[in-house]
Amino acid sequence: MIKAGIVGGTGYTGVELLRLLAQHPEAEVVAITSRKEAGMKVAEMFPSLRGRVDLAFTTPEAAPLKTCDVVFFATPNGVAMRETRELLAAGVKVIDLAADFRITDIAEWSRWYGMEHACPDLVAEAVYGLPEINRDRVKGARLIANPGCYPTAVQLGFLPLIEAGAIDTSWLVADCKSGVSGAGRKAEIGALYAEATDNFRAYAVAGHRHQPEIRQGLARMAGHDVNLTFVPHLAPMIRGIHATLYGKLTRDVDLQTLFEQRYAGERFVDVLPAGGHPETRSVRASNLCRIAVHRPQGGDTVVVLSVIDNLVKGAAGQAIQNMNILFGLAENSGLSQIPLAP
Amino acid sequence: MIKAGIVGGTGYTGVELLRLLAQHPEAEVVAITSRKEAGMKVAEMFPSLRGRVDLAFTTPEAAPLKTCDVVFFATPNGVAMRETRELLAAGVKVIDLAADFRITDIAEWSRWYGMEHACPDLVAEAVYGLPEINRDRVKGARLIANPGCYPTAVQLGFLPLIEAGAIDTSWLVADCKSGVSGAGRKAEIGALYAEATDNFRAYAVAGHRHQPEIRQGLARMAGHDVNLTFVPHLAPMIRGIHATLYGKLTRDVDLQTLFEQRYAGERFVDVLPAGGHPETRSVRASNLCRIAVHRPQGGDTVVVLSVIDNLVKGAAGQAIQNMNILFGLAENSGLSQIPLAP
Amino acid sequence: MIKAGIVGGTGYTGVELLRLLAQHPEAEVVAITSRKEAGMKVAEMFPSLRGRVDLAFTTPEAAPLKTCDVVFFATPNGVAMRETRELLAAGVKVIDLAADFRITDIAEWSRWYGMEHACPDLVAEAVYGLPEINRDRVKGARLIANPGCYPTAVQLGFLPLIEAGAIDTSWLVADCKSGVSGAGRKAEIGALYAEATDNFRAYAVAGHRHQPEIRQGLARMAGHDVNLTFVPHLAPMIRGIHATLYGKLTRDVDLQTLFEQRYAGERFVDVLPAGGHPETRSVRASNLCRIAVHRPQGGDTVVVLSVIDNLVKGAAGQAIQNMNILFGLAENSGLSQIPLAP
Amino acid sequence: MIKAGIVGGTGYTGVELLRLLAQHPEAEVVAITSRKEAGMKVAEMFPSLRGRVDLAFTTPEAAPLKTCDVVFFATPNGVAMRETRELLAAGVKVIDLAADFRITDIAEWSRWYGMEHACPDLVAEAVYGLPEINRDRVKGARLIANPGCYPTAVQLGFLPLIEAGAIDTSWLVADCKSGVSGAGRKAEIGALYAEATDNFRAYAVAGHRHQPEIRQGLARMAGHDVNLTFVPHLAPMIRGIHATLYGKLTRDVDLQTLFEQRYAGERFVDVLPAGGHPETRSVRASNLCRIAVHRPQGGDTVVVLSVIDNLVKGAAGQAIQNMNILFGLAENSGLSQIPLAP
Repeated sequence: MIKAGIVGGTGYTGVELLRLLAQHPEAEVVAITSRKEAGMKVAEMFPSLRGRVDLAFTTPEAAPLKTCDVVFFATPNGVAMRETRELLAAGVKVIDLAADFRITDIAEWSRWYGMEHACPDLVAEAVYGLPEINRDRVKGARLIANPGCYPTAVQLGFLPLIEAGAIDTSWLVADCKSGVSGAGRKAEIGALYAEATDNFRAYAVAGHRHQPEIRQGLARMAGHDVNLTFVPHLAPMIRGIHATLYGKLTRDVDLQTLFEQRYAGERFVDVLPAGGHPETRSVRASNLCRIAVHRPQGGDTVVVLSVIDNLVKGAAGQAIQNMNILFGLAENSGLSQIPLAP
Repeated sequence: MIKAGIVGGTGYTGVELLRLLAQHPEAEVVAITSRKEAGMKVAEMFPSLRGRVDLAFTTPEAAPLKTCDVVFFATPNGVAMRETRELLAAGVKVIDLAADFRITDIAEWSRWYGMEHACPDLVAEAVYGLPEINRDRVKGARLIANPGCYPTAVQLGFLPLIEAGAIDTSWLVADCKSGVSGAGRKAEIGALYAEATDNFRAYAVAGHRHQPEIRQGLARMAGHDVNLTFVPHLAPMIRGIHATLYGKLTRDVDLQTLFEQRYAGERFVDVLPAGGHPETRSVRASNLCRIAVHRPQGGDTVVVLSVIDNLVKGAAGQAIQNMNILFGLAENSGLSQIPLAP
Repeated sequence: MIKAGIVGGTGYTGVELLRLLAQHPEAEVVAITSRKEAGMKVAEMFPSLRGRVDLAFTTPEAAPLKTCDVVFFATPNGVAMRETRELLAAGVKVIDLAADFRITDIAEWSRWYGMEHACPDLVAEAVYGLPEINRDRVKGARLIANPGCYPTAVQLGFLPLIEAGAIDTSWLVADCKSGVSGAGRKAEIGALYAEATDNFRAYAVAGHRHQPEIRQGLARMAGHDVNLTFVPHLAPMIRGIHATLYGKLTRDVDLQTLFEQRYAGERFVDVLPAGGHPETRSVRASNLCRIAVHRPQGGDTVVVLSVIDNLVKGAAGQAIQNMNILFGLAENSGLSQIPLAP
Repeated sequence: MIKAGIVGGTGYTGVELLRLLAQHPEAEVVAITSRKEAGMKVAEMFPSLRGRVDLAFTTPEAAPLKTCDVVFFATPNGVAMRETRELLAAGVKVIDLAADFRITDIAEWSRWYGMEHACPDLVAEAVYGLPEINRDRVKGARLIANPGCYPTAVQLGFLPLIEAGAIDTSWLVADCKSGVSGAGRKAEIGALYAEATDNFRAYAVAGHRHQPEIRQGLARMAGHDVNLTFVPHLAPMIRGIHATLYGKLTRDVDLQTLFEQRYAGERFVDVLPAGGHPETRSVRASNLCRIAVHRPQGGDTVVVLSVIDNLVKGAAGQAIQNMNILFGLAENSGLSQIPLAP
């Protein structure tokens, strides 16, 4: 059994890691930390886990993190970068679900995240954990930068087109919609039920932290910089991201075949039949990404629809997928939940 | 008092017309028809109207429509075109909330709506009732084609940019999100609570009937055809449309001033301060359209956010606004409801 | 025009007072206070009010409250009791939407609200503002204790039965369900969208502050103490209270007639036809209470269903109804909004 | 592997059976019937099952039901009773998720379900499949009447009290709230998103089919008839039942201990610590029932809160629990899903 630790377990990615790992046949959580809630039983905070998770939160100091095989950081940005070096030195694999190791341009990272980076050398070492692109590099890594939720949905949607050189990368649009759990389990007015229900709005149109992460990923696929307009929206639902992607085709290509072939061997990416419209609930609670590709009225615009569960393939599930790869397990070990519908 | 009739009053636009007209100081509903529900009290079907609307549904034949000053068609497509001529002949003004008179290219209309048109000559006469563009023509009209919900939000969003020649009309994107009431009050599986809640999906990406209506409107503004990609989505909320519009700027322009000046005199269009993000609930139950315009990272892409209540400015409210103009009333008579939040 | 002030305008009852008063033909808000947000435009916090409310929040000190005709307290419990005496002395009528003046047994009030009462003499003077019971006393009052949301729905539901001596007051059950806006506009984890959606739960079964308020009201109707079990629940909706009331009949009585006669002259209480099931949305955004009464299978149990909008008849609307009575206006002045459905 | 057939697989209990059985380690679905959808791939109707369920719907005639080990009826009432005899004769175990075999008083059944019963003798043989009460009888059964959703939540809540003779069975109240999926996957106006959202209402107060089923169950526990008032409500959520139960204590008893001891050995019933409030999402997607018991203000009224997922413990999950018992499997085989939260 792989011994896993979770740093910062009181948010939605934390409880989702617990839900998934508690059902994982080859891993067990041996420590979960929360400075603020130290001493409290996890199941007291998350009653859904009663009878299944007996752990209590501990302080980071008291937690046996260095004897874990892997430690997940489900913390706010800026925490993992201060604690990772010590864990790596102790031989622990680290998977950061926050953004500390995602962007390799340190100056750009600092600009978006508003702090100095504590360990630029580890950023250089870290592997960006999008297995559908980076599987081989993940295998040998010590440190995984787990992708953001929007970046996962957007990159998987654009990937076949950019790899094939089939779209004009000088004007890409990603219009994305997220459920409210993406904002985290924080007591903020804007995330209140009475504020977010029966309501729809864009936010951060001037600039969102996931924009540079996505742009970096698309640029790697393309081999050169890309021009991306990224607009996130808040949708009145708990879970789910729906990315609607727009690009201009540069040549005639059989889009359906292109996507099906690119993802032929991928367990967690499902290309819908031509004409499909994936819905977010068709992946709810699962590690799947479902994608459909359209060419409206046969014009030169391609529209890609890409959906994930932001807490699973967009966070905790993908982290476990990376863990499975790191430790040579079946990539879908513990990740075979069937989506919950209705 | 203006005597109003409503043909087809059992849907959401019907009940919304009743809600608004019951509070209108200068109009009263004297007849409402439903062949299927003839004899039933309106307030029995819509308990929200108990004590305020005493009418019963009647058959179209029994209804005193020809003695009305104005008749609203809140019917499925294809009904108004068969009944309008007779009403016009009787001197009745007609406002069609369906699509029968919206598209002037009869062949295109038939292609999208799947039927022969019964009165092409009346299509030629009808005025497209988007007052912010067509106010003067509405004034003298006999027959109003009330715009669709998506077309209202999208046209008002693009209008200042296209009129000013500030964007490239060869590649426009309208990514639109609608509440479920837009699908009407029809018993269909896809619109069930358990299907539509906690879910988000695109639909009709291959082609939606509002696309030619929007394209026609934008082309009129531009003076030439435009290339528009329109993708509608279903959001888990009752009311509201959020249009996110993308275009490429062709010249440097002060976008905020452009929008504020264009809508300076418009009671029902509110341009938010720079940097704003209108939310759908900020117009809920009101006839307002709120708009914000962005230029992310100072690039050449303009992003417009435009929100309306699909049942009010996107249907019944705009119909009453047209009625007010037709009869020389204050344009906001009966339309001064403050949006409902939370 | 009646000059109204609002103390504490940043919560849901505050914004609802503004929505309703901004449309009131005989009153205008001249001051709204918030120590924390002083200087901010009200419409900046509540975009639904853009273009309709031009006020900014001020500190209580800077607000011209003493020259108002009436001041509404939309504050947390314990604020109004410290500021009311001075306003009354200045000749201002005071309507407290919090609980400071609702319970006449000062010791019991202190037990439930956890503080000393600042002015027991004013509690004795205050009139409990449930107009359907206390209209005459409201007319001459200086100080109104506006009822709580649950207490309004429950008291109106039990009233005809207790007044008629038709039920056993030694075992009454009120099973009540509230929308999330009832918890106020406070940043708390439990009220987050992702916590409250697709979820249902009881709370405070051991004891809720509205229990003594309801019991006091029922006891006044009965002329003696009553035994009431009150269980509140949180339902995943924005607005609305649904009270399901259970009692044992002590004699045979025509329930439908009893209720219809009791509420025959009441503008804001609507007794549904026999067999009806009022739904919360049938009163959404309105000052109405709709009630149905049942006797399942002809047994000796009576079941009353009573619904209100917690922010209107359960708070701001009832406060304005009281204001109308205080100033001799038509009781429904400014309160004729038709419920919003869908 | 146990070979399972499903008759009537196009509703919510059908898709839930498929979700759960597709993850069951010791059972597989070999046939699923739908006369109307014969030929369609199951995963085409339910995209959540893409890649996991390869079956297509077949007609009942074409399905190899008689060679199954067990057949589940997820059909409307009145279907199973016409097809069960033949399956039993072929040695197939039958589990009916509808109501055909739940009520042993045939005359009463006919009164509530509006039809003649086709096989009263099989009703007499059928075992009511609430394992926490009837486990031993389930073991040897051929035919299981799977309980209704409300009856499961209510019976498990009252069971310890009635078995212990601790409450007055002459006046029991069950105030129950259900998510909308309980109404089934049928195209009906009342179940539309725009009708059911942001709304709460009671229904069938005059009489609901689950009342006699619950009363029969409680009477068996008590050894004599009971007097029960049952009021169901529709709550705006997808899944979940919350039963709030009221009774009068007949003697002093340690309620917490009573409940904990009664359910000490039950895997699927979780008694919360004293003072708890179970929420429906704490059991979402799982086969659990969570219960809390209260005695408000130490009076003589007991309040029990009981929550289940109506599609799992209230339907498909309990059916599989019964299957597990019938075939001597571990009772929680395939039923160890952790509830989904948020």
